[in-house]
Amino acid sequence: MNNSKDLEKMIPLNVHSDNKNLYLENLKKITKDTGKLFLFAGDQKIEHLNKDFYGKDISSQSADPEHLFKIANSGYVGCFATQLGLISKYGNDYKNINYVVKLNSKTDLVQTKQSEPMSSLLNTVQDVVDFKQSSALSIVGVGYTIYLGSEYESAMLAQASRIIYDAHKNGLIAILWIYPRGKAVKNELDPELIAGACGVGVCLGADFVKINNPGKEYLTNCVKAAGRTGIVLAGGKHKDSEIFLEELYEQVNKFKISGCAIGRNIHQKDLDNAVRFCKAIYGIIYENIILNDAKNYLKE
Amino acid sequence: MNNSKDLEKMIPLNVHSDNKNLYLENLKKITKDTGKLFLFAGDQKIEHLNKDFYGKDISSQSADPEHLFKIANSGYVGCFATQLGLISKYGNDYKNINYVVKLNSKTDLVQTKQSEPMSSLLNTVQDVVDFKQSSALSIVGVGYTIYLGSEYESAMLAQASRIIYDAHKNGLIAILWIYPRGKAVKNELDPELIAGACGVGVCLGADFVKINNPGKEYLTNCVKAAGRTGIVLAGGKHKDSEIFLEELYEQVNKFKISGCAIGRNIHQKDLDNAVRFCKAIYGIIYENIILNDAKNYLKE
Amino acid sequence: MNNSKDLEKMIPLNVHSDNKNLYLENLKKITKDTGKLFLFAGDQKIEHLNKDFYGKDISSQSADPEHLFKIANSGYVGCFATQLGLISKYGNDYKNINYVVKLNSKTDLVQTKQSEPMSSLLNTVQDVVDFKQSSALSIVGVGYTIYLGSEYESAMLAQASRIIYDAHKNGLIAILWIYPRGKAVKNELDPELIAGACGVGVCLGADFVKINNPGKEYLTNCVKAAGRTGIVLAGGKHKDSEIFLEELYEQVNKFKISGCAIGRNIHQKDLDNAVRFCKAIYGIIYENIILNDAKNYLKE
Amino acid sequence: MNNSKDLEKMIPLNVHSDNKNLYLENLKKITKDTGKLFLFAGDQKIEHLNKDFYGKDISSQSADPEHLFKIANSGYVGCFATQLGLISKYGNDYKNINYVVKLNSKTDLVQTKQSEPMSSLLNTVQDVVDFKQSSALSIVGVGYTIYLGSEYESAMLAQASRIIYDAHKNGLIAILWIYPRGKAVKNELDPELIAGACGVGVCLGADFVKINNPGKEYLTNCVKAAGRTGIVLAGGKHKDSEIFLEELYEQVNKFKISGCAIGRNIHQKDLDNAVRFCKAIYGIIYENIILNDAKNYLKE
Amino acid sequence: MNNSKDLEKMIPLNVHSDNKNLYLENLKKITKDTGKLFLFAGDQKIEHLNKDFYGKDISSQSADPEHLFKIANSGYVGCFATQLGLISKYGNDYKNINYVVKLNSKTDLVQTKQSEPMSSLLNTVQDVVDFKQSSALSIVGVGYTIYLGSEYESAMLAQASRIIYDAHKNGLIAILWIYPRGKAVKNELDPELIAGACGVGVCLGADFVKINNPGKEYLTNCVKAAGRTGIVLAGGKHKDSEIFLEELYEQVNKFKISGCAIGRNIHQKDLDNAVRFCKAIYGIIYENIILNDAKNYLKE
Repeated sequence: MNNSKDLEKMIPLNVHSDNKNLYLENLKKITKDTGKLFLFAGDQKIEHLNKDFYGKDISSQSADPEHLFKIANSGYVGCFATQLGLISKYGNDYKNINYVVKLNSKTDLVQTKQSEPMSSLLNTVQDVVDFKQSSALSIVGVGYTIYLGSEYESAMLAQASRIIYDAHKNGLIAILWIYPRGKAVKNELDPELIAGACGVGVCLGADFVKINNPGKEYLTNCVKAAGRTGIVLAGGKHKDSEIFLEELYEQVNKFKISGCAIGRNIHQKDLDNAVRFCKAIYGIIYENIILNDAKNYLKE
Repeated sequence: MNNSKDLEKMIPLNVHSDNKNLYLENLKKITKDTGKLFLFAGDQKIEHLNKDFYGKDISSQSADPEHLFKIANSGYVGCFATQLGLISKYGNDYKNINYVVKLNSKTDLVQTKQSEPMSSLLNTVQDVVDFKQSSALSIVGVGYTIYLGSEYESAMLAQASRIIYDAHKNGLIAILWIYPRGKAVKNELDPELIAGACGVGVCLGADFVKINNPGKEYLTNCVKAAGRTGIVLAGGKHKDSEIFLEELYEQVNKFKISGCAIGRNIHQKDLDNAVRFCKAIYGIIYENIILNDAKNYLKE
Repeated sequence: MNNSKDLEKMIPLNVHSDNKNLYLENLKKITKDTGKLFLFAGDQKIEHLNKDFYGKDISSQSADPEHLFKIANSGYVGCFATQLGLISKYGNDYKNINYVVKLNSKTDLVQTKQSEPMSSLLNTVQDVVDFKQSSALSIVGVGYTIYLGSEYESAMLAQASRIIYDAHKNGLIAILWIYPRGKAVKNELDPELIAGACGVGVCLGADFVKINNPGKEYLTNCVKAAGRTGIVLAGGKHKDSEIFLEELYEQVNKFKISGCAIGRNIHQKDLDNAVRFCKAIYGIIYENIILNDAKNYLKE
Repeated sequence: MNNSKDLEKMIPLNVHSDNKNLYLENLKKITKDTGKLFLFAGDQKIEHLNKDFYGKDISSQSADPEHLFKIANSGYVGCFATQLGLISKYGNDYKNINYVVKLNSKTDLVQTKQSEPMSSLLNTVQDVVDFKQSSALSIVGVGYTIYLGSEYESAMLAQASRIIYDAHKNGLIAILWIYPRGKAVKNELDPELIAGACGVGVCLGADFVKINNPGKEYLTNCVKAAGRTGIVLAGGKHKDSEIFLEELYEQVNKFKISGCAIGRNIHQKDLDNAVRFCKAIYGIIYENIILNDAKNYLKE
Repeated sequence: MNNSKDLEKMIPLNVHSDNKNLYLENLKKITKDTGKLFLFAGDQKIEHLNKDFYGKDISSQSADPEHLFKIANSGYVGCFATQLGLISKYGNDYKNINYVVKLNSKTDLVQTKQSEPMSSLLNTVQDVVDFKQSSALSIVGVGYTIYLGSEYESAMLAQASRIIYDAHKNGLIAILWIYPRGKAVKNELDPELIAGACGVGVCLGADFVKINNPGKEYLTNCVKAAGRTGIVLAGGKHKDSEIFLEELYEQVNKFKISGCAIGRNIHQKDLDNAVRFCKAIYGIIYENIILNDAKNYLKE
């Protein structure tokens, strides 16, 4: 859909003039020149602790953190998002991955009914910039989670704004995970709230916002609310791969959703099946393949 | 009412001597040499989420964030106030707008009865100064909301004071939104409280204070309490345009209110009607036109 | 009582050697070479909002913030204490006033029974130093309020200590407002607590402490507890001017109180009466006039 | 198991290039070229106050803090972890010890049911780097405790991440103590939570994580979850030394646990017995000796 | 007991090499070459407000803050500890006193049952270093109070650690006041807790720890727990001077306590009696005089 010239128009004005080329290059890397995004989310070892990586219907390969890197290394994801610490441990063996550093993470031990959700910065954008240089890894962007409606919302909006400003200044892509959560939020999947989250994302200057799927009939509403910020949908709990692809195909092609940001649906598979699944998603998002061709990747 | 020489007298003493001309230029830009102000408020995508932009009696054009920029680009507003992030996404296509960067914003998900209101800084004045230079946009000032009577009031007064000091130092106009809110506030529209808010505004050194309308009989009281700080009235929920103009006309001409700071009443209209409405307001505030001429803009 | 040589002995040891002359000059300015102090307190537009400036028995002139400057400009006060923001708006027209920048202020909306009192810094001492230089105003000192007995007392003691240290370093006079307040304080006017407040003041290194009047029989106790820190008494609600002068005369001449720090009793009068009243106070504190001569100023 | 070449592969990517040799040297020092770790934990004088050092079944030698240094000085531990302050008092007489500076510590006076656990930084990594240089001690790393599941978890994750980043940058080994604790944690020894803690450790980039023993059947799970981060088991309350060695032997040789991090089981013995015990542990972890040889150290 | 060579061994390793001589000199000054300490505590005007200085059985001289300086100036105390602010007001007339700057202080208005105790820093060590230089006073060290067992304990441990590190770096002696206090502390005088406080003191690297007297039978335990950190006992409420000396004599000579840190027992006497009392204490702690000689000072 986009070409390089279109992508150039997507460079935000807070990218420092010296870093406009770098930003554009990063945008091309993770969108494969399309403006769309397939983000492989790998921050769950903190967010969900061990339960996503071990148990019934989960490949035993998933228990090893390196599994995530092996999948990302296949070349069939736009970028791989995880914590800087984890990257520091494995990155030396996986230099071809486009990394997005997930800057905040919390466990799910303390539940909303006990205490309002807040997730603090593990690293600053400056850390990322320094780490990028010293590691020579292809670090293309940063990610940050906001819990909209939490009593700590104001602090998280402030941190998100700071991060996006600093990321853009340094030529990095900025991606927000925005989830309505807190005592004030009766229904975390309320489609009007999710559309509101999209609006918050563009007001903060995010390049992409990861949201929970508000339901097919509300996708257009979200795309409009997000304006020039791309929307990528979270995968949620493991679901049937073919159904996932059908839904994704429709989201991207009919509703102009920018892509998806998923983790469990990929890494809970063994490496071979995970890569096949990535190929299918990659094809739909980046290569405009038809649904059947995508499904065929699962079976090859 | 004012001329340039009068405006010069309005330069606060904390404007750095190197930036006095810049401040004066900014003041002229947003007041069109009159000392009065028509501020188009566009921070609601965070403040009110999606409900202001979508629904019954709202133009479908309002759903797209770009609608705000198209209206502001008409040339018939004094300035357009919104978040830096949003400006970074659209500013490149809208270089003629006079921008006021709204420095704090929160959603309305957490209500006062649950938790005292607090709205943190999304960006610093230094960010704005840097962004202004790197973007070459016409950024003329900054805005900040204080919830007077909140248990976090003291923190917000401190931030507001910091921002105004830094803004003036750098030649930028400083505008406060002051709303009484919190458990301690029985009636957010209590006219005595609103007059108090005006006094707080001038003590913090604000150039303009946006307040809710305390009622016609209390406007003079507010203007006195604000002293050398101009008062602009919020628009609130959508109301009939003609009635709005009649009220504005009286506020400005009879009660010496400096103007208005409105959003929903403008952007919920389609572009054509929104611009007509802006023309009418622009005429009343900046051009001293008579009420009928203003109303005629609505019908042309 | 003092002469310049005595004043020299009052220079605290934390005044930077380069600024000893400046400190001495400031001390002379506000004490008129006497070591005593008549402070005109003008921070109530934040502290008390509009109710001190408008209503029954209040001159209509009081509604305009400029009224405060006109009174201070009469030359019959030692110094005028108000917020930096307000000074920035009017100072250019009132260059002969000796200003004390009141560094913190809060409204009285949130009452002690709802939330423990805390008043944050609106500006730093460095801001004041910079503002003094850029404005060329005669800024002679800074003021800060501590609520002793509040659960936030520790934070306020720390800020007060910081401010006094920085003020002295830069040659500025440091004045504390110390009021016992909070759930732990059964009686805000308990004379033992007020004497304690005086001791806190000298331990923090304040030059003057503004306290509420503990009652005639306790003044000596307070003066002793304060040691080398001068005590000035707050005026409180409006009272009969002649009675005020009688009390002041006794406080200064019999009990060795350093003077007074009052606002409402002055600014709620019209300009003429306010200046007469200031002349009378000025005479008692700085010129050793007899009570009848002071009273005569009210009638001239 | 490892040789130097293997150890080189363990250097995290956030070690500054100038400090890679230093990091490697430190890693060799504490792992004796094996990649495994015997950490002598000596932070209990703050963590447990005096009760670990005085009482029934505790050698009277344990009461003197120097006891810890005498044991560590025997040469039969990989490293000795304690607070910088304590090191500053005794280090000059114990220059051959490899020190790990424990950066945070709290007492156990305030229990979880009263207040959620939080342990703040006593020193920064920069303090450690400076202290290392000025003291010329062999300081090889830093340690930090996280209470996973505390309402302050997010703040501790952020501090831990900061510390690890800074430690690695400066060539220091980074070790986390991770204990599930807080109202949200029903069972602090829940093996699934402990496995989750291991995953958190590797995501933060820790080199080693000290955990409580989840039970034999869960060790493999933990080792997998930790990936490239080594696991060392806490000793807990004093237990029979022979049983301890049997368990350790199995943990290291059968379950690939990296070693142990213990305190009370060592320092509550007199010096002679403490050193014998250390020799046995040292042999198992670093020298691959058989269990009987280890047990013989206890009897020699 | 000690000689200079012994004192040299007491220099902590975090004293910067350039400041080792300065530290040693300060240590000699306050211990009179003995390693022991008589600290005159004068921070009560904030800690206890006015009640320690005025009332039954208190010399009327005590009401004047200068009384403290006159006593310290007698030359018969090791050092005088009070707030920097108070020193700034009187120090110019009392240049021969060895000052310890008490860095934090709070009043006792808010009681533990209302709110957990927390005492914030009034000044930083850098302030003290700067003040020492500009005032040319003999400032030999700093003091800080920790409330062990408070919910704010972690913050105070962190501040204490910071202060000790910075003090030592700059050649200053670091003294902790450690008092168990807070809802979690059932008995503030529990001897096991007090022994624990001694252990905390040495782990933070303090040179001396001021504790409440745990009772004669527990002193040895405390001395052991403190290791290389000296213990000085608080005096508490006024008691009979002869009994005080008898107890002190036994504490120092039999139980190897390093000395005492007292205020009220001294300053509530008139100057003559206060100095006699100081001479007696000075003799016991620094000059190894016998008890009767000490008692004779009281009567001379």
